Amino acid sequence: MPRQTVGIFLFEQVEVLDFAGPFEVFSRTRLEPGLASRRSDEQAPFSVFTVAETAGMITATGGLQVVPQYTFETAPAIDLLVIPGGWGTRPLLDHAPVLAWIRESAAVASLVTSVCSGALLLARAGLLAHQRATTHWGALDALAALDDTIMVERDARVVHDRVISSAGISAGIDMSLDVVERLHGKAVADDTAHYMEYRRSQ
Amino acid sequence: MPRQTVGIFLFEQVEVLDFAGPFEVFSRTRLEPGLASRRSDEQAPFSVFTVAETAGMITATGGLQVVPQYTFETAPAIDLLVIPGGWGTRPLLDHAPVLAWIRESAAVASLVTSVCSGALLLARAGLLAHQRATTHWGALDALAALDDTIMVERDARVVHDRVISSAGISAGIDMSLDVVERLHGKAVADDTAHYMEYRRSQ
Repeated sequence: MPRQTVGIFLFEQVEVLDFAGPFEVFSRTRLEPGLASRRSDEQAPFSVFTVAETAGMITATGGLQVVPQYTFETAPAIDLLVIPGGWGTRPLLDHAPVLAWIRESAAVASLVTSVCSGALLLARAGLLAHQRATTHWGALDALAALDDTIMVERDARVVHDRVISSAGISAGIDMSLDVVERLHGKAVADDTAHYMEYRRSQ
Repeated sequence: MPRQTVGIFLFEQVEVLDFAGPFEVFSRTRLEPGLASRRSDEQAPFSVFTVAETAGMITATGGLQVVPQYTFETAPAIDLLVIPGGWGTRPLLDHAPVLAWIRESAAVASLVTSVCSGALLLARAGLLAHQRATTHWGALDALAALDDTIMVERDARVVHDRVISSAGISAGIDMSLDVVERLHGKAVADDTAHYMEYRRSQ
């Protein structure tokens, strides 16, 4: 079975749960329910990896140290692009190499997603124009200010438009489970949530 | 304000959300509600770090690469000990240095907690004897088999006995929020959940 690739963007001061939630969901999804299928990758529909602008250790919010598996240069083609948020998004809003990589990756990805203030990066890259979208409650005004054609949804947990955006931090888990459901059906998504002992939002 | 230290154990094949959930909660807790307090550590009641047996990169479940901030040798004294789970717990059940470190750390910690199959390590270290405890649904029988004096709670999300144990994976978020509530009150825990856009279990 050819696996869909999930590329999760990492950067300095990325919020931990913003990337760890989607990483957990996509990397632990199995087409066969239960525990045994999760002891190997045989039934894994996704190949999940992290990508950063350059190699070397990244310090996430709170000091967690993570090492991206790939750089912009070395990453395989990405089917599902995940842009997490965090304070670290702010300096990137004017960092051309990151915006260019997001635009180029989004152009070839089959699905583009954001968690939390990751939506700000997508907006700045022009990818949310004339779309419905959401972000962390603390970043809703910033999102609207970046592009006044965005229809900002202030009470949604996950917004499905051409881009799939989610509210803050833990909402990235729901967004990821929604994507699993869209691609592999409700039973597979519910089984993944059951494995994670996560109660999906409705 | 002297901060309480939170030491989160890392090991090969630790489950990502098992450690990332508690890391997020404890590192983002602030005594002052809202967003501004989270731009610095001034109002942070906890100092959170990761600890592994040895230095160097650890590969978590699914391939996420993390670098522990400390080793058993170099870690500061730990007030709140967090033992996450994952398949990687199984080889550690007979690994004397890890069991010894857990025992020694637990002896001086003010609170010992587990997420998911991290409870197996605590059981093996003798720390759950004659206590109520829980773990991931797939590890309940294994927990009971390790020590028949443990009163295994099969339907609980978080069990509060001398050790605080939680069910699988995402339940570590609820466990951590419960600990925040116990130490700093419901308002601080609820504000942290609100910041994370996480709906606490009741």
